[in-house]
Amino acid sequence: MDILVINSGSSSIKYQLLDMSDERVLCSGTVERIGEAMGVLNHKIAPGAPGEDKITLTEPIPSHEAGMHLVIGLITDAEHGVVKSKADITAIGHRVVQGGDLFDQSCLVDDTVVAGLEKLIPLAPVHNPGHLAGIRVARELFPGTPQVAVFDTVFHQTMPPRAYMYALPYELYEELKVRRYGFHGTSHGYVTKEAAKFLGKPVEETNLITLHLGNGSSMCAVKGGHSVDTTMGITPLEGLIMGTRSGDVDPAVYPLLAQARGMSIQQIDDMVNKQSGFKGICGMNDMRDIHDAVAAGDARAKLALDMFGYRNRKYVGSYVAVLGRVDALVFTAGIGENDPVARVLSCRGMEHLGIKLDHERNQATERGARDIAAPDSAVRVLVIPTNEELEIARQTAGLLRDN
Amino acid sequence: MDILVINSGSSSIKYQLLDMSDERVLCSGTVERIGEAMGVLNHKIAPGAPGEDKITLTEPIPSHEAGMHLVIGLITDAEHGVVKSKADITAIGHRVVQGGDLFDQSCLVDDTVVAGLEKLIPLAPVHNPGHLAGIRVARELFPGTPQVAVFDTVFHQTMPPRAYMYALPYELYEELKVRRYGFHGTSHGYVTKEAAKFLGKPVEETNLITLHLGNGSSMCAVKGGHSVDTTMGITPLEGLIMGTRSGDVDPAVYPLLAQARGMSIQQIDDMVNKQSGFKGICGMNDMRDIHDAVAAGDARAKLALDMFGYRNRKYVGSYVAVLGRVDALVFTAGIGENDPVARVLSCRGMEHLGIKLDHERNQATERGARDIAAPDSAVRVLVIPTNEELEIARQTAGLLRDN
Repeated sequence: MDILVINSGSSSIKYQLLDMSDERVLCSGTVERIGEAMGVLNHKIAPGAPGEDKITLTEPIPSHEAGMHLVIGLITDAEHGVVKSKADITAIGHRVVQGGDLFDQSCLVDDTVVAGLEKLIPLAPVHNPGHLAGIRVARELFPGTPQVAVFDTVFHQTMPPRAYMYALPYELYEELKVRRYGFHGTSHGYVTKEAAKFLGKPVEETNLITLHLGNGSSMCAVKGGHSVDTTMGITPLEGLIMGTRSGDVDPAVYPLLAQARGMSIQQIDDMVNKQSGFKGICGMNDMRDIHDAVAAGDARAKLALDMFGYRNRKYVGSYVAVLGRVDALVFTAGIGENDPVARVLSCRGMEHLGIKLDHERNQATERGARDIAAPDSAVRVLVIPTNEELEIARQTAGLLRDN
Repeated sequence: MDILVINSGSSSIKYQLLDMSDERVLCSGTVERIGEAMGVLNHKIAPGAPGEDKITLTEPIPSHEAGMHLVIGLITDAEHGVVKSKADITAIGHRVVQGGDLFDQSCLVDDTVVAGLEKLIPLAPVHNPGHLAGIRVARELFPGTPQVAVFDTVFHQTMPPRAYMYALPYELYEELKVRRYGFHGTSHGYVTKEAAKFLGKPVEETNLITLHLGNGSSMCAVKGGHSVDTTMGITPLEGLIMGTRSGDVDPAVYPLLAQARGMSIQQIDDMVNKQSGFKGICGMNDMRDIHDAVAAGDARAKLALDMFGYRNRKYVGSYVAVLGRVDALVFTAGIGENDPVARVLSCRGMEHLGIKLDHERNQATERGARDIAAPDSAVRVLVIPTNEELEIARQTAGLLRDN
């Protein structure tokens, strides 16, 4: 069973084709700058495998449809193709950021699902239109192929009302569905299952704090395998300090900047999402640049890291309070998997909560799931590489089996 | 030494006259509806004492100056007065909400201080103009009497940058002083000293989590007697769920409501400050009404309490993580001192953090400082009545002695 995973944005399509008999990636790639003067397609055959091959196309890509035609052409190419024809693709799994409270599980895409995604655009104005474009094109080009929508929000749909409700006028929840949704759910859900396996515990008995630290970052409190709280909110802005997003901030920053600077809501929204976080504090948003700057004595880069670690430790403390017993902290995503300093900053000074790193294991450059806690740490500290595409493919395959 | 404490708002003046030889309140009162068609002054002589007497005046009070004239008339009245003349008042202590980062201690008011308070109006548009009106009138009416400004923010000026900085563009801090200030500092500072006394520990060695739960609510992490973090932010909006304030919320609520409802920044600001919190969730903002409603089966009132307790427990967990050793949780202010259910909700399920209430002691209706933790609780849980007026008077007296 070959499954094509698609993550369609407003001007890009990321894709991956997996052979689910052994969960091997056959090919993957990115279509970028759709609708611009010149588009680009980067395609990898058997990425990461010994026979890896790369193809780059540079040409105008006027629409998502044009982009998908190019992708299908490469996948089924007589010389470089990994399958003979479109018909060899059993199903397509689509990543969708915002499922609101309309979707509490992955589902087969039909007209009702498409209408639901349209209805949710106000809650995800940046993401859902791009997903819809990808889904529409895929349904046209693969008319008989099952299409599955896999939502970033679904894993968090198990949160209790005390965690997902805001103390705003109740009618905003009733009428506009203003509530905490949380994101990165596909990743938090994937590493939850992998962590339970690693710990040798049934997932239903596993309590975790999962830290997805990447360009966007979020933390999740997992009780018995279910999300019971998470740091992102109505949108992916709330919570941790990220590359360019502020995370938590006194909402009074809106009236203050409107009055003091004459800024509009849109300008402030842009600022807290694109000019804040690490970039706002120290002008850089790549963790490697920040570490280099700290080494060179840059005080603002040091402040940014200090704030990042402090915010993470505060949320870890919150979730320890909420969860009671915690089996493990789980670090994942770009920073979580690859940055030992970020992990130290997120754990330090919490020995009284049973969290104790083994500094040698933390520094080790090995890949794959691993335990970096000290032997006498009451809470295990794991690094688990995430794989959202595989999780989407698994959920897609699972849905086909169940239907 | 008699000290007059003044808390001057935009249309009100609260006052209290204290004899500092024994810290006894001689009289107290409130002037309200200044500038409206009809004003009202409620005056209490020896409030709470056996000889308590009450006087109410209802008449137009066109200005803060007119209000202060009435107050002085009552204080020095031949029949009901508690002092012979204005000259018997040694000093005046003024409550000021926002000291920004211009003031890191209480200070004698001079023209420079007044200019500083004017400069801070953008950070406290609701409060500082009223304080300034009161200070100006008091300086005119008591020209030779020392006037002291005591700031709600000063106690939190010991926070480290990692706790007070937001992950916003750094120039907002440099140019507009956008940062976390925290409020209720006079109360957090007062109960910190009282708690250390109660515990029999030097305050410099005392680590506390203080919960000021009233109409406005905030929590403070106190390390060695100093504030190291607090829940309120640039303004008193951020943090805990309050009577009518939302506390923490995804700032994306601004663009969302602007788009979905056409609301202006001012309207949303008004909503998160005045129509949210308990009032927003269940339509009530008096804790007694909420408890009655819960008893009558009101699901929204129950949700509001559940959210309130949950938010409190999350912050307690954060501060446990930050502080390491915690000697005690300290409950204070209207709800903190008088509502055993609110205390249970803020503590429950945190036995793994060493926090364990004694339910009988918690229910007891006694007043005064008391320990309501179970004998085997590693962290003590104290109820300490706050007294911001006394703290302002003490700081005023202390400044006179030092100068």
